[in-house]
Amino acid sequence: MSDIPSTQRVLIFDEYNGPLVVRKAPVPEPLDDELLVKVEYSGICHSDLHSWNGDFDYATICPLIGGHEGAGSVVKIGSKVRDWKLGDRAGVKLVNANCLNCEYCKTGHEPLCDRIQNYGFDCHGTFQEYMTIRDVDAIKISKDMNLASAAPVLCGGVTAYKALKEANLKSGQIVAITGAGGGLGSFGIQYAKAMGLRVIAIDHSSKKEHCEDLGAEWFVDGFETSEIVDHIKKITNGGPHGVVSFVSAKKPMEQALEYVRKRGTVVLVGLPKDSQILVNTTLLIFNSITIKGSLIGSRLDTDEALDFVSRGVVKVPLEFVRLEDVPIVYEKMKEGKVNSRVVVDFSL
Amino acid sequence: MSDIPSTQRVLIFDEYNGPLVVRKAPVPEPLDDELLVKVEYSGICHSDLHSWNGDFDYATICPLIGGHEGAGSVVKIGSKVRDWKLGDRAGVKLVNANCLNCEYCKTGHEPLCDRIQNYGFDCHGTFQEYMTIRDVDAIKISKDMNLASAAPVLCGGVTAYKALKEANLKSGQIVAITGAGGGLGSFGIQYAKAMGLRVIAIDHSSKKEHCEDLGAEWFVDGFETSEIVDHIKKITNGGPHGVVSFVSAKKPMEQALEYVRKRGTVVLVGLPKDSQILVNTTLLIFNSITIKGSLIGSRLDTDEALDFVSRGVVKVPLEFVRLEDVPIVYEKMKEGKVNSRVVVDFSL
Amino acid sequence: MSDIPSTQRVLIFDEYNGPLVVRKAPVPEPLDDELLVKVEYSGICHSDLHSWNGDFDYATICPLIGGHEGAGSVVKIGSKVRDWKLGDRAGVKLVNANCLNCEYCKTGHEPLCDRIQNYGFDCHGTFQEYMTIRDVDAIKISKDMNLASAAPVLCGGVTAYKALKEANLKSGQIVAITGAGGGLGSFGIQYAKAMGLRVIAIDHSSKKEHCEDLGAEWFVDGFETSEIVDHIKKITNGGPHGVVSFVSAKKPMEQALEYVRKRGTVVLVGLPKDSQILVNTTLLIFNSITIKGSLIGSRLDTDEALDFVSRGVVKVPLEFVRLEDVPIVYEKMKEGKVNSRVVVDFSL
Amino acid sequence: MSDIPSTQRVLIFDEYNGPLVVRKAPVPEPLDDELLVKVEYSGICHSDLHSWNGDFDYATICPLIGGHEGAGSVVKIGSKVRDWKLGDRAGVKLVNANCLNCEYCKTGHEPLCDRIQNYGFDCHGTFQEYMTIRDVDAIKISKDMNLASAAPVLCGGVTAYKALKEANLKSGQIVAITGAGGGLGSFGIQYAKAMGLRVIAIDHSSKKEHCEDLGAEWFVDGFETSEIVDHIKKITNGGPHGVVSFVSAKKPMEQALEYVRKRGTVVLVGLPKDSQILVNTTLLIFNSITIKGSLIGSRLDTDEALDFVSRGVVKVPLEFVRLEDVPIVYEKMKEGKVNSRVVVDFSL
Repeated sequence: MSDIPSTQRVLIFDEYNGPLVVRKAPVPEPLDDELLVKVEYSGICHSDLHSWNGDFDYATICPLIGGHEGAGSVVKIGSKVRDWKLGDRAGVKLVNANCLNCEYCKTGHEPLCDRIQNYGFDCHGTFQEYMTIRDVDAIKISKDMNLASAAPVLCGGVTAYKALKEANLKSGQIVAITGAGGGLGSFGIQYAKAMGLRVIAIDHSSKKEHCEDLGAEWFVDGFETSEIVDHIKKITNGGPHGVVSFVSAKKPMEQALEYVRKRGTVVLVGLPKDSQILVNTTLLIFNSITIKGSLIGSRLDTDEALDFVSRGVVKVPLEFVRLEDVPIVYEKMKEGKVNSRVVVDFSL
Repeated sequence: MSDIPSTQRVLIFDEYNGPLVVRKAPVPEPLDDELLVKVEYSGICHSDLHSWNGDFDYATICPLIGGHEGAGSVVKIGSKVRDWKLGDRAGVKLVNANCLNCEYCKTGHEPLCDRIQNYGFDCHGTFQEYMTIRDVDAIKISKDMNLASAAPVLCGGVTAYKALKEANLKSGQIVAITGAGGGLGSFGIQYAKAMGLRVIAIDHSSKKEHCEDLGAEWFVDGFETSEIVDHIKKITNGGPHGVVSFVSAKKPMEQALEYVRKRGTVVLVGLPKDSQILVNTTLLIFNSITIKGSLIGSRLDTDEALDFVSRGVVKVPLEFVRLEDVPIVYEKMKEGKVNSRVVVDFSL
Repeated sequence: MSDIPSTQRVLIFDEYNGPLVVRKAPVPEPLDDELLVKVEYSGICHSDLHSWNGDFDYATICPLIGGHEGAGSVVKIGSKVRDWKLGDRAGVKLVNANCLNCEYCKTGHEPLCDRIQNYGFDCHGTFQEYMTIRDVDAIKISKDMNLASAAPVLCGGVTAYKALKEANLKSGQIVAITGAGGGLGSFGIQYAKAMGLRVIAIDHSSKKEHCEDLGAEWFVDGFETSEIVDHIKKITNGGPHGVVSFVSAKKPMEQALEYVRKRGTVVLVGLPKDSQILVNTTLLIFNSITIKGSLIGSRLDTDEALDFVSRGVVKVPLEFVRLEDVPIVYEKMKEGKVNSRVVVDFSL
Repeated sequence: MSDIPSTQRVLIFDEYNGPLVVRKAPVPEPLDDELLVKVEYSGICHSDLHSWNGDFDYATICPLIGGHEGAGSVVKIGSKVRDWKLGDRAGVKLVNANCLNCEYCKTGHEPLCDRIQNYGFDCHGTFQEYMTIRDVDAIKISKDMNLASAAPVLCGGVTAYKALKEANLKSGQIVAITGAGGGLGSFGIQYAKAMGLRVIAIDHSSKKEHCEDLGAEWFVDGFETSEIVDHIKKITNGGPHGVVSFVSAKKPMEQALEYVRKRGTVVLVGLPKDSQILVNTTLLIFNSITIKGSLIGSRLDTDEALDFVSRGVVKVPLEFVRLEDVPIVYEKMKEGKVNSRVVVDFSL
């Protein structure tokens, strides 16, 4: 394609918490098995803020271009690529470079592969106009889909969707979602409904209307805690069959074990500060409860999560900003003032 | 049957920790839907000691006849009983009187039914020569089977077997068993082998030979803890696929979360003193680990657990005592001096 | 309750295909473990017609009171019944008298029990004003529910629901339903939607609008067969993930194996005339396809199927008739002129 | 490695059923993502005979080097290969070149990928001394393992193992294996035992001792058919929980549906001549039976199948021949005179 420039704009920081600046950088060349993707939209995820803050133990490089929810189109193709053509729409998600050959890669659990790299954490991410990606790492996005909507699904959406799958529920059963009014929770309520589940949304009372609009059948104010366990068991006639815990506070996680139904499953996604919760083993054993950790989805999970959005079953309320506005969004995130999914529109 | 006496011998206590005495009591009459079972053998389980001590929160009656691992034969049958005949061999297990009609009973998880009664805890148990039992609660014991061997399977055996089923492993995978040299553990190693699993036995070094004789492929001394996690991960090339935790100490439970393989399952059976363990949520989430509580098996689990013993695949080393010797056995249990399964032989 | 009469009206036939007449009969007394149910509504199922015709191999009694989709209220209770009280609403379904003690009963597959009796086939059914039923066989019906709507769910609804469960699909996947416009199919489309599945309805073109109104995403005319297989594979990008076959014609069953997706499942419910279909084993093996027979649901399946109707997620269009009108309904069934679910209203 | 020659010996045919001759051919160079494997052993599979005969519909090339069960060592490595090093032992199996990116590849069902090529069928196979293979297609073989034993596992072993996995049985249950004394059946009996299953071997009476030596608990002569169904149901108290059908005759497949236990699964591997069997839908539906086609295993299935052999749990009786002896083996196969697994030893 004749219109690929030789340089592009990237948003980069040179040290943790240092200035986030837009710079010129060369447009890379795809290797034999890579695509060059023109990034048209990039979601801004809470973990991008953490990456910039250097909050995570695992290795991140610095200087770093953040971002891991990219949606765009294929503008150049390596010589060995078979399953992509110019003009295809491609998603760029967090996990890439998995080995394709270990026990996890061979069974569709590639986010557990030891070899993975994470865009925007230990390699440059989607806050740039052009980027290369291995063909098998890129996600096919249907041409019928709103491309901007795809971006936040690639991390936030699929994380919520995967957690619900891990809860192993059947349609007609009840799931409680903690942090239901937040980014993951808003996806979670919708995916749960799309799976035929009945939803108890748990969050601060200010989120009640929002959660009900998304499809929650019950809303429970999680901050008036004294009666929560009894109340939830009562309205569900024995407790919800599953709980998906998006919050990072400990108390709601520990309460979930108390109100979840016998033989129920509690899926933990949110990480508490010091990474520890107290588990009541008597409850766990006498009620035959399961606790599971869930991280992020596989490539197939991502395809599925996108499909629900593509068909309009799950909606993604968007707010668009320019690349240079990302620092402002981070500030808002710190203050808890971001409600919708904020997406960088590179055409602005 | 003309030889059913009108009175029988029972072992009873009138207050917790009070004297355990053998008394005369009437032989009960079976109701329409009940069997009268002549108890020939009764296992003595560690929880019988706890029941006598009054250690458990949940209601127990007093005076109480303990025991919940009974094996005998049917000597009288209620008028509506269809699936049993005189002379059939019957097992009497912990859980009975479930409602048959709740969501748990309808799906073969009847130990979770709200209506259950537990022999030897909240109703009289198997430390008596004759007892009545509802037809659907009694367990069919094959006539080919050594009847005495059946007794300890009805609680200890099925508990170990169920925990292994809950670990959801496939043949060829590796399971670590903590407390492998004890009563549950000795069952666990054998059931695991019978399922085609490879076993890491974890216990005090004095149990090494015992565990290896039962089929453990590796033995790890759980009391030299400093290197356990690394050692187990190394010999299993990434950790065992499952862990079944029979011990009641906390440290081994918490270590299990560290060495279990990614996407692995840790099944908790043993209860720690204050019923709490600390769970590292970062490990849980980043390694997609599952923790499950497992209590006791259903009627079908019990049938299956017995079948392995009936076919000689799982062996039960027995030591026989008289009914009046139960208090002596309790004393030995307190001192940790019971190695085999001790069974009351009512003919002694 | 003082208002239980000593006699009642029943619809009975004395020989197969013989006159269907309304007679007086005594109101039965419940046994210790039974309920007396005042039947307020009884669905009329196609298999009632077959029962009257004597079409089935398996033993039916004669004279016979047909009917197996009864909904009413509990008016008397046996002395040992614990989980029911006067005034409770109860459903009477096809399968009853299962042994509660075999491998199928113990795992919630009681319709496979060797002991079962079927109301309206080998024992008297619901075409009577009062009938007794064992407590564990009756189905709890929520007091919030439209009682008449419950009746057809007890056989037709749960059969469709169970078949969909057996297809083992996940929300977002595609299911093809043959005979989609008929009684089972109309339930099937709605349950599929309630499970988050996408539906291809296959039937005669006259049913197109009906199927689309119920939620089908695609409609395929199954009688213009030449291109069906290719067409379905094309619109679904490789075939539906599952097929539920309600028709009794062979060709649609055999075609299903051709268009179902690789690793897909074809669930057979409808019985072809001579009970045989030709299966292409090359397709089966090279595409790793599963074929499953599905009969009727368990007690839990029935509870679940009712719950969807109770919440208004699945709707049941009803037509009411008097008990003496059943023969007229049978005539219409023979002519294929029954579209909605016809229900006897005993108050008419 | 300095000792890689520039030419090698290959066994090739120029037309179907034409002469099988040993010729000189160049040793290929591995591409960036390929290994060069020195083939030390190659199993001779019955389908190699079919490939030479041109029996299969799907495209095969001609001239063709057959063989698809190769075991050897890595002697050269492409520049981008990360997970292999010189001297590693590698297995070459039937399926390769899958796209790594479709719904089947993403979930570990890569033999269903539309892109696959099959060694010895539509591309040159393992009847050559050196061959290249994509890194992700080669199977790691443990250095502790007898290398020759690995060869027949790569197709025959894994096919038997996969079929047993698809039967979805639990340890302690009963599986019937038809064609139990043949190549796949001999693997099947052993893998079934390794999974804790109880085996009914069905074959010609001449295979009785062989099957019992391998671990079959019962042997049934499949050629005295009159009483087979009743006999098998009787000895198993209701039928085996699963059946794995390796034979290509129709009658045994159709009988399997009659004797399999309610809710049981019949897995078909063997292909009947005209690819059609008659399925009794009344049996299928009233007994809730599942029929499944199973083809060959995935990469992970292959790893697992090898692991059982590596640990000595499954044994592979071998007979060694020279490359030029393959035509003689084919002749013996036609006459049904091959009992053990015949392996080409390239050092002979």
